[in-house]
Amino acid sequence: MKGLSILGSTGSVGTNVLRVVDAFPGRFRVVGLSAGTNVERLAEQVGRYRPLVVSVATPAARDDLRRMADLGQTRVLVGEEGGVAVATHPEAALVVAAAVGAVGLVPTYEALLAGKDVALANKETLVMAGELMVEAARARGGRLLPIDSEHCAVHQCLDGRRPQDVRRLVLTASGGPFRKRPRETFDRVTAAEALNHPTWSMGRKISIDSATLMNKGLEVIEARWLFGVPAEKVEVLVHPQSVVHSMVEFVDGTVLAQLGVTDMRLPIQYALSHPERWEAAIPGMDFTRGLCLEFEVPDHDRFPCLGLGYRALRAGGTLPAVLNAANEEAVAAFLDERIPFPAIPESIAAVMDEHRAQPVRALPDVLAADAWARGEAREILNKRASAQPIPSGRP
Amino acid sequence: MKGLSILGSTGSVGTNVLRVVDAFPGRFRVVGLSAGTNVERLAEQVGRYRPLVVSVATPAARDDLRRMADLGQTRVLVGEEGGVAVATHPEAALVVAAAVGAVGLVPTYEALLAGKDVALANKETLVMAGELMVEAARARGGRLLPIDSEHCAVHQCLDGRRPQDVRRLVLTASGGPFRKRPRETFDRVTAAEALNHPTWSMGRKISIDSATLMNKGLEVIEARWLFGVPAEKVEVLVHPQSVVHSMVEFVDGTVLAQLGVTDMRLPIQYALSHPERWEAAIPGMDFTRGLCLEFEVPDHDRFPCLGLGYRALRAGGTLPAVLNAANEEAVAAFLDERIPFPAIPESIAAVMDEHRAQPVRALPDVLAADAWARGEAREILNKRASAQPIPSGRP
Repeated sequence: MKGLSILGSTGSVGTNVLRVVDAFPGRFRVVGLSAGTNVERLAEQVGRYRPLVVSVATPAARDDLRRMADLGQTRVLVGEEGGVAVATHPEAALVVAAAVGAVGLVPTYEALLAGKDVALANKETLVMAGELMVEAARARGGRLLPIDSEHCAVHQCLDGRRPQDVRRLVLTASGGPFRKRPRETFDRVTAAEALNHPTWSMGRKISIDSATLMNKGLEVIEARWLFGVPAEKVEVLVHPQSVVHSMVEFVDGTVLAQLGVTDMRLPIQYALSHPERWEAAIPGMDFTRGLCLEFEVPDHDRFPCLGLGYRALRAGGTLPAVLNAANEEAVAAFLDERIPFPAIPESIAAVMDEHRAQPVRALPDVLAADAWARGEAREILNKRASAQPIPSGRP
Repeated sequence: MKGLSILGSTGSVGTNVLRVVDAFPGRFRVVGLSAGTNVERLAEQVGRYRPLVVSVATPAARDDLRRMADLGQTRVLVGEEGGVAVATHPEAALVVAAAVGAVGLVPTYEALLAGKDVALANKETLVMAGELMVEAARARGGRLLPIDSEHCAVHQCLDGRRPQDVRRLVLTASGGPFRKRPRETFDRVTAAEALNHPTWSMGRKISIDSATLMNKGLEVIEARWLFGVPAEKVEVLVHPQSVVHSMVEFVDGTVLAQLGVTDMRLPIQYALSHPERWEAAIPGMDFTRGLCLEFEVPDHDRFPCLGLGYRALRAGGTLPAVLNAANEEAVAAFLDERIPFPAIPESIAAVMDEHRAQPVRALPDVLAADAWARGEAREILNKRASAQPIPSGRP
């Protein structure tokens, strides 16, 4: 049995990781779990999987967990220190990094420095500190396996191929809920509309990133680090059916594509089983009713976040971390109904304009840029929030 | 430089093989060429590539070639013996088997017995004697590389993967020129209409096989031998755009697909360069205008030839060879405007009904079944031809 730790075990990805674990009894021993403040779900997970260590965001959450869970031998820790303990536990051979946002950064880095295999669902880790992560994996011999469906698709197309044979990667985008919505109505977009993703059921932050296409901007940066290709070799195509999860074009002009149902257990299972494949716990694709797959080029005018991703990748250094932080702040402000939808890319671009990118030599460089960008973003967002009424999805 | 022999060098595939050879100077030395009776083109090829040995179908063609070509050191041989000499020349490391129909069978088998790598464009070889071919390749250490775009696609999806991880192969079919044509008009189909393939430019025999879907029936049988999967793990999907050349579904429910332009130099180059990939001499896929890919299940009522392929594969032994021979005779009769289009599957089924399948222990078993089926087919086709007037494409 392989020892498994999950960072972000109560979220959308984390709970699906545990469903995959359940589907293959005897394959995994759950060693550690970390969560934010969803103590109720974590208490259930503790009862079921009996991990050796768990971690929560705050002392209050720790106290709640102690009241609610039958802890037995499980140690309970708090905050980043707790996350690092979960990520580096000696009995964990594989760490799933599924915490949302920048909070997963340090524990994931520590897992790689400890030589663990890391299955990565957290976009921000590679966006903020891709070079450091890839170097740590290479230096300590851990594998970095993507759980994101797009990068999992590229990994499947590339696995065992010669890297010099790659001409370009083509990441597909569903296009989000506003693929066909006219730009002039974007300032009336409500949070509820933006959360209503057409093909994937995901967490709130990621659903908004999908509506702005920032998720693809972040994925372009991730792809650069996961697969060692420059920005000009990574393209994005809108594919509303979300059946083709991504593609690789080789130097001879041939293209390999990975297709599958839109169930995140599929890429999770791939990362957990690699280099093997296991008989699926979920149904495969049904071709018997036919299929129609459309592909179109993304509209950068309506979705400027994608271009911001390329801009950050090309500039490099601390700018991707700034992009990420400004985006997190903007999405939070939008979900709080403090700014309108078009202010998300506007505020991010404004923060990026103010930043002088610095080289990233170590994690503190990244964390400093992240902190600076959050401060700058909040200032810009506060001004924006007081400037204009925004649409409410509430009755 | 790798020594290369081409069986069928003047045909559609053969000439494209030479275009690929031209695109990569210094990679190949053309050692041997065999052709049927297109002496004019062969004479040009002899002048350009200076092969050590060539072979033609008949003594008359040999005499013509001697008159037309500047032969220099090139030996000229005739018939099957000549084809075998081309296929087994000691300086040929790779043999492209691109002769159309059953004529390629013996030379291809001899190439495999001589331990050559064989790039296979000839469908009939594996349909008639798949088990013998695969055994010869295994025993003598030669590789069997498909040039057919569908099998090349499957090869690319499978290459380096674990065979036990495959759930099914999905071969795509363009659907041919009559995909939407009502069945009740099939008896008015002309040869010119049937030769007018929507997406691929191919030889005459193969174009008719594409119009009847017999090409997929034959490919299902080939796939069984190339990839070691039973009939029930091979499916066919109609895909009119011919962009996805085939797919593989793995046990975890994931699907890998190969996409590319419809240019047969792409699979040819893959077979010639494998396990490397070379920078393409042809343009890659253009996604900038978008793309719409449709998939539908094949209509067995309108295209019974596909089911005949499965029937032959399931029965095994000599029945696939009988299917192939009866099809060659029927297609020739149709192209000669001696039978109507629906008589192609009808006559093949009638020949198969009359056959008692025997095990295939050696090539003579196959050749006997082939000869028997041709005699039986001609008899049935002659009766059919005299029974009914058929549509003419001639003015």
